[in-house]
Amino acid sequence: MSTDAYARAGVHRDVAREIRWRIAEAVRSTWGAEVIAEWGAFAGLYRADLLWRMEKPVLVATTDGVGTKLKVAARFNRWETIGYDLVHHCVNDILVHGGRPLFFLDYIAAGRLDPDVIVRIVESVAAACREVGCALLGGETAELPGVYAPGELDLAGTLIGVVEHVRIRDGSRIRPGDHLLALPSSGLHTNGYSLARMVLAGLDWEKSLPELGTSIGEALLAPHRCYLEPIQRLESAGVDLKGLCHVTGGGVYENLPRVLLRGTAAVLRRGTWPEPPIFGLIQRIGRISDQEMFRVFNMGLGMLLVVPPQDVELALATLPGELRVVGEIMAGEQEVRVEM
Amino acid sequence: MSTDAYARAGVHRDVAREIRWRIAEAVRSTWGAEVIAEWGAFAGLYRADLLWRMEKPVLVATTDGVGTKLKVAARFNRWETIGYDLVHHCVNDILVHGGRPLFFLDYIAAGRLDPDVIVRIVESVAAACREVGCALLGGETAELPGVYAPGELDLAGTLIGVVEHVRIRDGSRIRPGDHLLALPSSGLHTNGYSLARMVLAGLDWEKSLPELGTSIGEALLAPHRCYLEPIQRLESAGVDLKGLCHVTGGGVYENLPRVLLRGTAAVLRRGTWPEPPIFGLIQRIGRISDQEMFRVFNMGLGMLLVVPPQDVELALATLPGELRVVGEIMAGEQEVRVEM
Repeated sequence: MSTDAYARAGVHRDVAREIRWRIAEAVRSTWGAEVIAEWGAFAGLYRADLLWRMEKPVLVATTDGVGTKLKVAARFNRWETIGYDLVHHCVNDILVHGGRPLFFLDYIAAGRLDPDVIVRIVESVAAACREVGCALLGGETAELPGVYAPGELDLAGTLIGVVEHVRIRDGSRIRPGDHLLALPSSGLHTNGYSLARMVLAGLDWEKSLPELGTSIGEALLAPHRCYLEPIQRLESAGVDLKGLCHVTGGGVYENLPRVLLRGTAAVLRRGTWPEPPIFGLIQRIGRISDQEMFRVFNMGLGMLLVVPPQDVELALATLPGELRVVGEIMAGEQEVRVEM
Repeated sequence: MSTDAYARAGVHRDVAREIRWRIAEAVRSTWGAEVIAEWGAFAGLYRADLLWRMEKPVLVATTDGVGTKLKVAARFNRWETIGYDLVHHCVNDILVHGGRPLFFLDYIAAGRLDPDVIVRIVESVAAACREVGCALLGGETAELPGVYAPGELDLAGTLIGVVEHVRIRDGSRIRPGDHLLALPSSGLHTNGYSLARMVLAGLDWEKSLPELGTSIGEALLAPHRCYLEPIQRLESAGVDLKGLCHVTGGGVYENLPRVLLRGTAAVLRRGTWPEPPIFGLIQRIGRISDQEMFRVFNMGLGMLLVVPPQDVELALATLPGELRVVGEIMAGEQEVRVEM
């Protein structure tokens, strides 16, 4: 065999090098003084002594992917927001526990690397990192011939954040009588895309639909919202956020029990919050039950907040027009009921 | 549509739940007192105050995958060591900079989740984490219908470690005249599998070959070695490890320059270290040039160590029979030469 057997085996080192070179500026743009990094290092270095002002810092870490929203992005060749989807999903997950983002690492793999696509994805990850104030400290781009379906790729990421020990939000003070408030989602965020794509497959995704106020493609690509800023505003205002719930895969039925202690349950009253119309379209076309809709999708509930009754007014006044009272905590055994 | 449209769209929530339940014990077995974790949390919590004894701790982070070694594991349905491949790759990467492992997060994705396979993979990741003394703090298992080729899956992970700032190994003291020592690899580790699989495709992978002393399948599945323990022994003995180089994708040609400062170069003398026979077989069958072999594979050089001349004897005495002098640092412009 000749000089580049590896390329014939499906691994293109020159492409990997081109990508590393082209993403360098975007990645470096996320690095502050706490990053001790050399380009080409085996690992990223992040100065933890800048956290030393905390009494008892606790690191908070999560790994997530963006699911088959990737296939929607690929269909429209729209990669500018997929990094926001990934980073925001992770930021919201650590925010639930009180964590603030420090640094992020991404993983991108494909059967064959398309440098233009990979560069655009990493640039969007870097842009999202900059906006939430975290460093894109490292990552891996892998070419895995035969593992992925032709033209497909996967994207995942890991976020490391920090929280002061006494400020860890663990839901331990949640009591019957507390109110459930919601910050709205922008759409599906990063969950339920396999179902949505199957149900909507026969429709035109580019035509604007009056019912949506946009096209199906645009509605499906709406970026996963980040709740860092509104949650920080509520905390600054002095609202007692006893618990947060990021509504991701499994919907309210599977996510809300994660913050409910024994002896508590939750009721949500449908109609008290706006549901992005894409959900109604999916439900109607797919003839899907309410139960399953709430088990797969966030249904407009992006982040749920457990707030004591006396703080509800302050919370609503702090984020006027955005926050809704959507239900309450009851006595019970960790079950979640949606009153339809 | 009926009650489980999501399953018909290819996402099986019941399987995901079964997996979460079955991996719980293995994951928890990696948790020490520093982990503040609840099963089902949105993110993992790790007490950083246990690091407070350090003067200026620096976090060290890396994300890696195991490449198409996965396809070899799948062919033999052998998942017991794939977690070691993943964790050891990451441990070696942070070790280069002086980092010690703290916690790990894994990412597994497939077109369709086979719970038995996923559980075995996570159990092997957990076992590897236990052995290197790090917590498996979190992870994500994703079912992505249509993204992966039928029957395929991908596995990646992120390791967070720590190093005292003054002990960061950055290669800045490497000088011409320093010696290059090598810790042997066990085989391909996690790089070059696409090429090896293509070249060896026509052979019987189960039959023992005298040249290998084992079968091709066994030789290819040899786990990625972990160099944490031998490196710690050298450090404890007082050997000045000026630089380390984990030989991964790109071989010595692409990895060694990552630790070479301007004004330095490296020469390696082939024949001074043992080459696992699988490399000779791949080269002969594939008629691959020496250059390309050293550009794709580690060729038996698992971890390279840059040691000043006066410490070489102590190093060899500390790890007798394992460590070899394989070359030296010269004046030059960051190039790597292998004398064949």
